Order: sequence, then C-alpha cells, then structure tokens
Amino acid sequence: MRKTNEYAHRMASKTIKLVDASGNPVAGKEVALKQTNHKFLFGCGIFDAVEVANENVPAERLAFQKEKLDKFLDVFNSATLPFYWGRFEPEKGKPQTKELKTAAQWLKDRNVTVKGHPLCWHTVTAPWLLDMSNEEILKAQFARIEREVSDFKGLIDMWDVINEVVIMPIFDKYDNGITRISKELGRVGIIKEMFAKTREFNPGATLLLNDFNTSINYEILIDGCLNAGVPIDAIGIQSHQHQGYWGREKLEEVLERFSHFGLPLHFTENTLISGHLMPAQIEDLNDYQIPEWPSTPEFEERQAKEIEEMYSILFKHPQVEAITAWSFSDDGAWLGAPAGFIRTDNSPKPSYEVVKKLIKDDWNTSVTCQTDDNGKVTFEGYLGDYDLVCGDKKVSFKLNKHSDTVQMVI
Amino acid sequence: MRKTNEYAHRMASKTIKLVDASGNPVAGKEVALKQTNHKFLFGCGIFDAVEVANENVPAERLAFQKEKLDKFLDVFNSATLPFYWGRFEPEKGKPQTKELKTAAQWLKDRNVTVKGHPLCWHTVTAPWLLDMSNEEILKAQFARIEREVSDFKGLIDMWDVINEVVIMPIFDKYDNGITRISKELGRVGIIKEMFAKTREFNPGATLLLNDFNTSINYEILIDGCLNAGVPIDAIGIQSHQHQGYWGREKLEEVLERFSHFGLPLHFTENTLISGHLMPAQIEDLNDYQIPEWPSTPEFEERQAKEIEEMYSILFKHPQVEAITAWSFSDDGAWLGAPAGFIRTDNSPKPSYEVVKKLIKDDWNTSVTCQTDDNGKVTFEGYLGDYDLVCGDKKVSFKLNKHSDTVQMVI
Repeated sequence: MRKTNEYAHRMASKTIKLVDASGNPVAGKEVALKQTNHKFLFGCGIFDAVEVANENVPAERLAFQKEKLDKFLDVFNSATLPFYWGRFEPEKGKPQTKELKTAAQWLKDRNVTVKGHPLCWHTVTAPWLLDMSNEEILKAQFARIEREVSDFKGLIDMWDVINEVVIMPIFDKYDNGITRISKELGRVGIIKEMFAKTREFNPGATLLLNDFNTSINYEILIDGCLNAGVPIDAIGIQSHQHQGYWGREKLEEVLERFSHFGLPLHFTENTLISGHLMPAQIEDLNDYQIPEWPSTPEFEERQAKEIEEMYSILFKHPQVEAITAWSFSDDGAWLGAPAGFIRTDNSPKPSYEVVKKLIKDDWNTSVTCQTDDNGKVTFEGYLGDYDLVCGDKKVSFKLNKHSDTVQMVI
Repeated sequence: MRKTNEYAHRMASKTIKLVDASGNPVAGKEVALKQTNHKFLFGCGIFDAVEVANENVPAERLAFQKEKLDKFLDVFNSATLPFYWGRFEPEKGKPQTKELKTAAQWLKDRNVTVKGHPLCWHTVTAPWLLDMSNEEILKAQFARIEREVSDFKGLIDMWDVINEVVIMPIFDKYDNGITRISKELGRVGIIKEMFAKTREFNPGATLLLNDFNTSINYEILIDGCLNAGVPIDAIGIQSHQHQGYWGREKLEEVLERFSHFGLPLHFTENTLISGHLMPAQIEDLNDYQIPEWPSTPEFEERQAKEIEEMYSILFKHPQVEAITAWSFSDDGAWLGAPAGFIRTDNSPKPSYEVVKKLIKDDWNTSVTCQTDDNGKVTFEGYLGDYDLVCGDKKVSFKLNKHSDTVQMVI
C-alpha cells in the first residue's frame, strides 16, 4: 500500500517531451529538473529592504543589512513592505513613494513577491487627518489608495487593503481619522469602500482583509463582507504568539473555522519567539515594553520546534497559500522581541535552519531522469518554477496543477 | 424657561376642526380627547391566549386563564405568540394552525398587535428534520415559512424571522436540523434566505432579527446583513435579566451601539424577576433548574423599581418602538422564574401597578378642551388612537407625527 502523500495538493506531475531544433525527439538523455521557486508564498516582513535598496544608511549599517537580506533571500520568496500612512506620508503631500518603489523593485528583481501593508488602518495612520472633516478624511483615504495602488502596480499586486476592522470603530486608545470614518461607515461599509477603491486601480491584484482577531467576530465580519459582495481574494490571519505558541489544536481549529468560506488563507503576520514569553495578562501586546528581551539557546530550540510544527500544519492545509513571519531578524523586531529567524548579529538561529530545510529541501523538488524513446520524461514535484537542464541546455518552466504534456525545444 | 419634554418624540399636536352635518363650525363646545391605544408597543409573551381563545382546558383552568388575560388586556397592546416549530408541528403535516389562528384572532379582536415567534430557530425545532438531508431541511423550512406567513397574514404581520443566529451554527448541545443548514449557509446566508422567503409571502410585514447576544458579534452580524441587503425592519434585542438588572449604564450602552444602524429597536424578550437572582456563573440560563423560585415582597419592590427605570429609559429612546416582557405571569414563566407582573395566583405585583401607571396614566393623554369660534381645538398628546367625545357624539382618530389640521363631522 502506498503511503498517502499529505502534501499531494502542493504537487503535480508533468510530462515533458524534449525535441531538438528540427523537431526530433531527444531520446535517452539525462535531464535534471530543479525547482527554483515555490508557488506557495514563504515570506517575512522585511522592511530592511528599504535601506538596502536605497543604500541610504551609513556603510557599516548597509553592510550589516545586506548580509541580513542575503540570508532572507536564501530561503524566502515573498516579502511584506510597510505602507503605514503615518510613516509613508508623515507630511501631507510628501509620500515616500520613491524609496518604497526602489525597495519593491529590488525585491522583484530577486524574484520575491511583494505585498503592501496596509492601505487603511487606524494605527500609525496620518496624524494630519485629525484636522479634517470625516468627508475629507474619506476623500484623502481614497486618494491615498488611488496613488499607492497605481504607483506600485506591477511591482506590488498584493495588498492588505484594510487592517484590524473588528476593533477599528471601537479603538479608543487615541483619536484618529480612520476610527472616525469607520464609525460612520460601519465595519462592512468601510471594508466595502476600501476594497472597491483598491480594485478600481488594480483589477488583477490579490486583495486581503487582515486581522489579529481570530474569534467569531472576525468570522461574522467576513461572512457579512462576502454576502455584501466585497471581493476578498484571501483572508489574512495574524498570529503573533508572543504569549506562547497556539499549538496544534488551536491552529487546526482556526484553520477549520476560517476555511469554511472557501477562500485562500494567508498567515500574514506570524510571530514565534526564542525568548521568555510575554505574560498572559497583557491584553494589548503593545503594552509590554521591556529594555531587553534576550534570545536564549533553550528558547531557540523551542522556537525551532514550534516553527517546524506550525509551518508543517499550514503547508498541509490545502487552503493556506502564504505564511509570513512578521520579523525575519531580531534586529528591529516589533516590541524588541526575539522573534526572528536570525539574531541581532545576523547569526542564524535553529529556527532558520529548520525553515530553510523545510522550504529548500523537504518541500523542494530536484530530480534527475532519462528521456524515453519518444524524448519524454514524466516527473512529480512541488508546484512552482523549475529549470530543466539537459547537457549544456537549460529551459525554465512552471509546474502548475493539471499541466498537460508540453513540448520543449532544446 | 420651559422644561424640555424628554418624551417629545412620542408626542404630536393636532388641530381638529369640528363641524356639524351641515358643515357649520361647532363653536364653544367642550370636547374630551381620550387616548385609547398607544402607537408604541407594550407587550408580553402571552402564550396563554391559546388556551383562552380555544377554550380547550378544564373550566377551572379556563376561568383562571381568563382572569389572567383580563389583567393583561387592562395594560398591554401587543402580544407574542409561540410558533416554535417542534411544538407547532410536532408531527410532520399536522400543524396547530387552527389553535394559533383562533388565538391571534382573539387578540386582534381586542386591539392587540400580535407577533409570531420565531419562524426559524435551532432550539425547539421540529425533531423530524433530523431524518432529512440539508437540502430537504431547507425546503421544509421554506415551506413552513410560506405556510405560516400566508395563513396568518392580516392576523400576524410581525415576525421574529430568525432567532439567535450568532450561536446558531456553533450550537452544540444537541444535533438539530437548523444548526445543520446554518453551518452550510453561513449566518448572513441563512438570515438572507429566511428574510427573503418571509417577505415574499407578506411584503408589508414587520420583520425582525432577534438575539440574546448583545455583544459586538451581533453588531457585526447586523452590519453584514444590512450591507448584504437583508430587509430587516427592526432589530430584536432580548434582555433576560435573571442574573440581575443590567442597570442604566449597560442599557444605555446597548442602546447606543444598536441605534447606530438607524433601525427601530424592539426589546423582544425582557425579564426582570421578583425573586433571588440566578447565580452569575450560570452561562446558559436553561441550565438553572430549581424546584421552587419564590416571588418575595422584598424582591417584588426591587422588580418594580427596575421595571420603572428600564421602561422609562427605553420609552425615552427615540428608536425603541416596542418592549415585550417575556412572561406576563409567574404561572408558566420560563425556567419557573418569578418573572411576571402577576403572581401564580393572578394577584398583581407592585411591578404590575408600576407598568400600568406608566402606560395608562403617565404616558397616556386625556384632556378636555373647548372649541373656539371656528370650531377648532388644538391639543398635544402621546401618539396612538383617540376618541373625541362631544356631548353624546364620539369620533375615533389616530394621532400621528406631523398631523395636519383635520375636519371632523359630529
């Protein structure tokens, strides 16, 4: 009896017929088939790409950042770039479009899929919205979407359109323009407007709703949005686990509840730390501010095990299409947490080796076969981009689900 | 300075011109204007009307029930009748249409507005649904809506269309047909279907969504429904307070959160008890079963005070259009709680006197005035039905908001 392949949904088989320039089958030749990229998105929040691409930091820092990015590029194929309005356009009319474009292009050149985060959020939003009427705020928010989505089209075709809407209208830590308009439009109303505007300026983009709330609230919100015709392409689920790994049970329960909608699931902001856990009684993670949060050998082992289990569970689930670790490195990590795959000195933690092994080895296809008398080879592999090498010739192709036999000329 | 009238939104002023049969003004005559009914719905769950109207219980019980109903009719102008599917049609194809029609007609004849509760609910639903496929259950549910809504049109033009949807798909106390289809359709999906079907067979009816959940879950659910075009006429809010009166603060907070939608609010199932409180740790009220739950003088005073405060807060709020006490009497009250305005022996509690005073006296208009030289009188009163009496003549009319001057012939 053949063992069931729990990753079968991530794979496909393909038959390739090799012919020479005259159309004759290339028979009995050895061909190497090597996966060069994944269809699945393995990503990180990698805001450091802005410094590296723009080279706008001192030489020493730049060298350190380049080393960091090299380690990132060795493993990952997707990146989240920051579009927090308050930082992207701290002064009205002076957006950091150029810097972000340079970063997005730099990543694209290295075969990394870029997502912009977020187009609309109440936190770190533009402070100058506070001087406006609600009507003006909404107009400014629309204009910002039009500008960013148009400016980055082709570089960024995936957006966290709107972030944390469950809490948005009742967010009361401080007054802000986005909470104001969300109160007026309602949750589904503001989502509808923001998705419509984003879609208008990039019809082909992948648009996400994103939230840290994984309760029934978020389920009902998504249900309402879908029934209201909001064109959500993927459900974004944050999973900042500073207070401890969810564990298999909760993770599978969340997957079950959110897979009901039949939409792709993206784990957009994942955190598993290699230090002591944040106390459970902290409600808003932002309230936990400590001077040092060290990464320790013991906790690095725990982090590596948790990463391995969590990534395996997510990769097994047929609707999950992306996992983004929120911090690639401890250097600059949110809340100063030891949340990265690498330490503050760029040295890799065990979790880096674990995730690299999964992505580049266990879930990666590299096979050698011989063409038959008709010049055909059939192979099975993980979905993604491939190189076929035969002698000194190389052809690149994509392995998709349900591929027909293709003829390649070498 | 004139005192602001906190009930101004419940009132209107009207000018009536009285003329005789020849069209001459009836000048300088005394006229009495007496309110005979409220526009606002003051109701109770009064399932006893089924026994009284059908006279299908032993004589002693019938006399007791009639006495109960007389006390109800002395104060209230609206009634909720039970349409729990499992009781209404315990055997498939044998619905209790006749009994309920008789009850609804009996109430209508006494000027009581009747609401049917509920058309779709996972609790007390028909057990024989369990033998069906989901497709068949949905078909049966549609057929039941078509049957009841058509059969009762004109007698019952107000329905709790669907009940407690927040919990519906995750209700796990026992398997039931409605939870099954709600899992498949989703929350907004099942609401949409049930409202559409109800509307189809009584386009002019007042249709409610009803829930005991007053959390953000219900807010998001309503938001989703409205954005999905579900024609909700009024938001139903249950307020079973067996574990203690919400108090002004929570009540006003709930009113604020649910009035955002701009829809009428109905307090559909209100309970304030005149006995000891149910322990706070009980999560599902149904789990508290005790042999006796006495009404005591001390707690009857508390109940009366709470009723007075709560009804006053609700009557003051411009969007509240109905308050239904879930149990008119302790006799037969849900969970055996001393939840009624009258005791098990039909004797009135202080709360009965309080609610009667509010409805029939404080918020009721009865004035006497004199027509001027043109036969005109102008008066201000609470919205509802009125009798105008002049000498031995009587004319009935309605006092609505923004009434023009009307001419009445006496």
